[in-house]
Amino acid sequence: MKTLNVGMIGYGFMGKAHSNGFSKANHFFDLKHQLKLKTVCGRTKEKAEAFAKSWGYDDTETDWRKLIERKDIDIIDICTPNDSHAEIAMAAALAGKMIMCEKPLALNGEQGQQMVDAIEKARVPNMVWYNYRRIPAVTFAKQLITEGRLGRIFHYRAKFLQDWTISPDLPQGGAGLWRLDVGAAGSGVTGDLLAHCIDTAIWLNGEFSSLSALTETFVKERKHNLTGKVEKVGIDDACTFINTFDNGSLGNFESTRYARGHKALYTFEINGENGSIAWDLHDLHRLQWFDYKDEGPLRGWRSIHITDGDHPYMGRWWVPGLAIGYEHSFVHQVADFIQGIETGNPAAPTFREAQKTQRVCDAILASAQDHAWHKVRKD
Amino acid sequence: MKTLNVGMIGYGFMGKAHSNGFSKANHFFDLKHQLKLKTVCGRTKEKAEAFAKSWGYDDTETDWRKLIERKDIDIIDICTPNDSHAEIAMAAALAGKMIMCEKPLALNGEQGQQMVDAIEKARVPNMVWYNYRRIPAVTFAKQLITEGRLGRIFHYRAKFLQDWTISPDLPQGGAGLWRLDVGAAGSGVTGDLLAHCIDTAIWLNGEFSSLSALTETFVKERKHNLTGKVEKVGIDDACTFINTFDNGSLGNFESTRYARGHKALYTFEINGENGSIAWDLHDLHRLQWFDYKDEGPLRGWRSIHITDGDHPYMGRWWVPGLAIGYEHSFVHQVADFIQGIETGNPAAPTFREAQKTQRVCDAILASAQDHAWHKVRKD
Amino acid sequence: MKTLNVGMIGYGFMGKAHSNGFSKANHFFDLKHQLKLKTVCGRTKEKAEAFAKSWGYDDTETDWRKLIERKDIDIIDICTPNDSHAEIAMAAALAGKMIMCEKPLALNGEQGQQMVDAIEKARVPNMVWYNYRRIPAVTFAKQLITEGRLGRIFHYRAKFLQDWTISPDLPQGGAGLWRLDVGAAGSGVTGDLLAHCIDTAIWLNGEFSSLSALTETFVKERKHNLTGKVEKVGIDDACTFINTFDNGSLGNFESTRYARGHKALYTFEINGENGSIAWDLHDLHRLQWFDYKDEGPLRGWRSIHITDGDHPYMGRWWVPGLAIGYEHSFVHQVADFIQGIETGNPAAPTFREAQKTQRVCDAILASAQDHAWHKVRKD
Amino acid sequence: MKTLNVGMIGYGFMGKAHSNGFSKANHFFDLKHQLKLKTVCGRTKEKAEAFAKSWGYDDTETDWRKLIERKDIDIIDICTPNDSHAEIAMAAALAGKMIMCEKPLALNGEQGQQMVDAIEKARVPNMVWYNYRRIPAVTFAKQLITEGRLGRIFHYRAKFLQDWTISPDLPQGGAGLWRLDVGAAGSGVTGDLLAHCIDTAIWLNGEFSSLSALTETFVKERKHNLTGKVEKVGIDDACTFINTFDNGSLGNFESTRYARGHKALYTFEINGENGSIAWDLHDLHRLQWFDYKDEGPLRGWRSIHITDGDHPYMGRWWVPGLAIGYEHSFVHQVADFIQGIETGNPAAPTFREAQKTQRVCDAILASAQDHAWHKVRKD
Repeated sequence: MKTLNVGMIGYGFMGKAHSNGFSKANHFFDLKHQLKLKTVCGRTKEKAEAFAKSWGYDDTETDWRKLIERKDIDIIDICTPNDSHAEIAMAAALAGKMIMCEKPLALNGEQGQQMVDAIEKARVPNMVWYNYRRIPAVTFAKQLITEGRLGRIFHYRAKFLQDWTISPDLPQGGAGLWRLDVGAAGSGVTGDLLAHCIDTAIWLNGEFSSLSALTETFVKERKHNLTGKVEKVGIDDACTFINTFDNGSLGNFESTRYARGHKALYTFEINGENGSIAWDLHDLHRLQWFDYKDEGPLRGWRSIHITDGDHPYMGRWWVPGLAIGYEHSFVHQVADFIQGIETGNPAAPTFREAQKTQRVCDAILASAQDHAWHKVRKD
Repeated sequence: MKTLNVGMIGYGFMGKAHSNGFSKANHFFDLKHQLKLKTVCGRTKEKAEAFAKSWGYDDTETDWRKLIERKDIDIIDICTPNDSHAEIAMAAALAGKMIMCEKPLALNGEQGQQMVDAIEKARVPNMVWYNYRRIPAVTFAKQLITEGRLGRIFHYRAKFLQDWTISPDLPQGGAGLWRLDVGAAGSGVTGDLLAHCIDTAIWLNGEFSSLSALTETFVKERKHNLTGKVEKVGIDDACTFINTFDNGSLGNFESTRYARGHKALYTFEINGENGSIAWDLHDLHRLQWFDYKDEGPLRGWRSIHITDGDHPYMGRWWVPGLAIGYEHSFVHQVADFIQGIETGNPAAPTFREAQKTQRVCDAILASAQDHAWHKVRKD
Repeated sequence: MKTLNVGMIGYGFMGKAHSNGFSKANHFFDLKHQLKLKTVCGRTKEKAEAFAKSWGYDDTETDWRKLIERKDIDIIDICTPNDSHAEIAMAAALAGKMIMCEKPLALNGEQGQQMVDAIEKARVPNMVWYNYRRIPAVTFAKQLITEGRLGRIFHYRAKFLQDWTISPDLPQGGAGLWRLDVGAAGSGVTGDLLAHCIDTAIWLNGEFSSLSALTETFVKERKHNLTGKVEKVGIDDACTFINTFDNGSLGNFESTRYARGHKALYTFEINGENGSIAWDLHDLHRLQWFDYKDEGPLRGWRSIHITDGDHPYMGRWWVPGLAIGYEHSFVHQVADFIQGIETGNPAAPTFREAQKTQRVCDAILASAQDHAWHKVRKD
Repeated sequence: MKTLNVGMIGYGFMGKAHSNGFSKANHFFDLKHQLKLKTVCGRTKEKAEAFAKSWGYDDTETDWRKLIERKDIDIIDICTPNDSHAEIAMAAALAGKMIMCEKPLALNGEQGQQMVDAIEKARVPNMVWYNYRRIPAVTFAKQLITEGRLGRIFHYRAKFLQDWTISPDLPQGGAGLWRLDVGAAGSGVTGDLLAHCIDTAIWLNGEFSSLSALTETFVKERKHNLTGKVEKVGIDDACTFINTFDNGSLGNFESTRYARGHKALYTFEINGENGSIAWDLHDLHRLQWFDYKDEGPLRGWRSIHITDGDHPYMGRWWVPGLAIGYEHSFVHQVADFIQGIETGNPAAPTFREAQKTQRVCDAILASAQDHAWHKVRKD
């Protein structure tokens, strides 16, 4: 059994989620490779070492370029803020490493395309952590759609609602708050939250054709943690758009960090000729399913508790009725990535697939700026 | 106790809902007037007579002009398809009748303005049946907003989802299906369903500024019941739009008759700085309420069962826990209209208020056609 | 079309619910008889007259014996406290009137048996107002069971939870509070609330075999409104029991007026070999249905919105998605009672059927007293 | 940082859950000890070795007596069927090991008492895996009760409903099915499922006084996997009981494996003077909370999404809105057990506390047999 050594760059929230994914995959999935948390890389040595100790990494680095040069590292896992994804990923590709990169892939479509070109030239295994595809209920939704159970699709709607930035006293920038800093994040809810909704939508319903978007920044200025000054807020606090899909269905999307009462309510619904599906992240272990083929007076939305052995991934976990949670999507992603390598059938989304989401985000931000409909660029 | 004689024009679904409203108002509300179902007017004499017998109307008419001329009729209630509202209402105004008109007020904003002018010139009591304002949970939401409990509003979103026209075998036009005939209805889901959402939104969140809309007609041709021929479908099967409100909040609206699994799911949600509200028509007796002022770890959405004596209208009905339904909104509307006459403080929405919704609908249909943002005209 | 004149005794909460039932039945159901609210009878003349005016009764009586003697009265409707049901019903039977009696039928099984004997000797149409049988979702549950869709039944559980008597400052006795006075009510939650649960259970799952019960009176003394003194409370504040049914299934029942947060939460669930059903009064327009015959991974509880034309009674009301409420069960009961007379196939539950519930209540109260299992007497 | 070596006996479903708990505790909790999966012990060497490899155990044993003798083992974790708990635990106590034992503690109260005596004599740290206490929502419920927010308690009700044994073709006995074999399990749902309900109830609401129970075995005979013959089924398939608590409240409990549609629906509700709490395992990340102190018309059940940093345990995991699942209760239990050792304040439930549940189970089974009320023995 070959060992694959993981070198992780970044040790924030995502560093924890990824480390958990790597450390559990072999416990629950039959893989031909043994994953090993080898090295964690971060700018602050003490923090990196503390993190390494908690999770059992062998050692640390403070310079990601050194990590990439190391011959004992097989997989580079990128958990840094968005503005460094491109540079690290392209260097890691040149060094011939396997690459797993946090989402969104890039700051924008142009940068994303450079990354795709570099990684495909290097022919290294690659993946982007759009983890929600691997919540079992979401994977099951994909199965139902692939089986044709919904028939022609009429509508796709998705929301991602949070409420953690309503206070104007919250600063922007720096550790834990870089998502509010347009320089580090590239955009606000569009790249952070809608990117998830878009990735799932492309997977479940195909590509976007054209769209019209509206963004708003409710709190115009915030203290910046890195400069210590009150500065203009450059991100979008909220974004909503309407769109057409290539398959003729209509889309409606919305994301905000100003929806009081919702912590991380990612929800989508798909309406087809013969059935409908709905899901939300706050009750991620359930799938709502409406089947028009049921007998007329007995038709109703079924709340399916996705915890049976014949539900995706669930045969690896516990017994019917016992739910898993958010973190398991990362375990599944690790397992699928490794199995993709083992079978030669790469797991999705690769950089190329994740780049589609970048192009939709570009169209959103452009439309919000010029108040016109935009076609989504297909690379 | 003075009697007010009602002359109702039309005896379809809405004729039944209105008749029930008129017949129950005196049983449950203390009014100074006794409402009397006097005359029902419809083109087919036998049907009008059967309807009159079921509901206890004294007599029938087959020509609405004769009904309007009758001196023993106090209130003209218009339940006909949309294309006849204007002519009837303006004639009734000239005849000095009180007027209650089904929604939407008119086929479009221009026609609506003529109606407003005519009725205000005649100075007759008038109201449009946007009945959902008087679902107790919705009225209670209005109270909470008026009390300032939500603080600054960030988001308003509403949907009205149905699924009854998915089959391409369903014809358009004629009795029961005039809502699919653009000639009789003026538009599809925009005037039929979104008009409700817009009326509620204006009431709860103020006027619309500008919007961008998308419409679709999924089934392009249907047999027309009146001509017997397959004809182009002129209505919008689905409509979604994004908008700004005058108060700075963002709106997101959607309506369709192609959302498999939803019968009449009108739902809205409002997110404010200090609280949020959500409601839906499928569980119309509940209001979802999130209060940021609750203690942190105890915060959660409250499902309020709107059946207590101190909830709007509910002191007139049963005891806590025992729900009322859809039809009661019409009873409330009758009671409020009469009390508006008795107190000199007219019940809303009057024609003038309902005309605001027409202007929003105009902007929606224009935007959907030219794919540009439109400002909403303020008369 | 023959008119049936109704003479109603009592004008409290139930008087209102019954009057509404009588006044609406002809509007929504095709009956061969026209119901007429003729006379309301109550001890306080002014109150009776005010009630008569609101509801359109022709006149009033203050002595129920006079009402029964009147030749122009066809139906005697008994809405008085429990301790007068027997005397009134037996006198009305002797006078040859049709009788509709509020539940519970009697103060106890012995008295109930006398009533059954008297009314069957007089051969008059009779019915007891166990109205929850005619909530459409409950009637639909009965259909599913009758069709054999559940297979062998293993479990039946029901609760009726309220919270309105928790305050020790609430007095007992007199108008509006006679349900707390053991003299007028006979028992507490057993006869008031569990009687409903038992009636439904017998209808859906057959007769009770034996049971073991536990009752409690949390507030031992309350001021009595009629005497003005603090007196011992004689009713059961809460009652729970476990039982076997004749069909071999197990039962679990509970009722209380001390379940903080529940206004009138009557809920039942039935688990069978092939399916399960659940319902509750707080969302009375829904039926929860689990079908084991669905495909394995797609199994889930369906929430059926009981508002379609092919659901029981619903073809008489509005359109799919538009709910009716509590009061409609009384309209249905009136319509069924009249159709029972018209067809010669009496509507249930008759006095004889309602007497079964009395015998179960007797066993409950006896078991709670001697802490032993009791067989339920079958008359 | 001292290492504690774990020796686990049994490698079935619970072996997996416990191993996961031990392997994750140091990742998420700040402990002064490093837990090490040292040895797994099982009768079948190949299976034990495969399990050891998946989870990273250093080695295996096939004889639990040898494991107990080993000096390099600090903690003995017992995951075997119920009939071997006593022998193993008492031997491990004699050997001076720390002991973590699966629930139920013993086959019955008498055996349990011997175990308590032995372990207390040996003065070794000990705990029983009643893991549901450490679902964050359940722990939070305990906090609310301890703070006195509910006031006087009136009612406690709990259910544990499953449906996996309905088929008469399911055999009893042997790997995976020993829970159906009365010899190995001691009882059916009483010890397996109700034991959880009782443990939680004692923790939240105090001790049981007396009870009356009903059990049923729906399928009387099943093939026995160990003998190959059809044998009488000795376990209870279903059990329901009513009871009084020492604090004067009433209890209602039910468990079954014949509730079609419920996989592992453990649910409890507590009604107090000032508030109520409800929880269920199928949505284990939510707590339902009703607060009577809320303003009257705004009262409603709050659905609290227990995923905030100030909810029990949740500060160690992800961010608000992101749920954890079933398995985390075991991680918490490991962390609490270790912290109990470190602080000298032992984590509950110890053997002594878990023995209380045994005495309630004894009373249940005795009452079900003689159809009489039984007092619960207090050791």
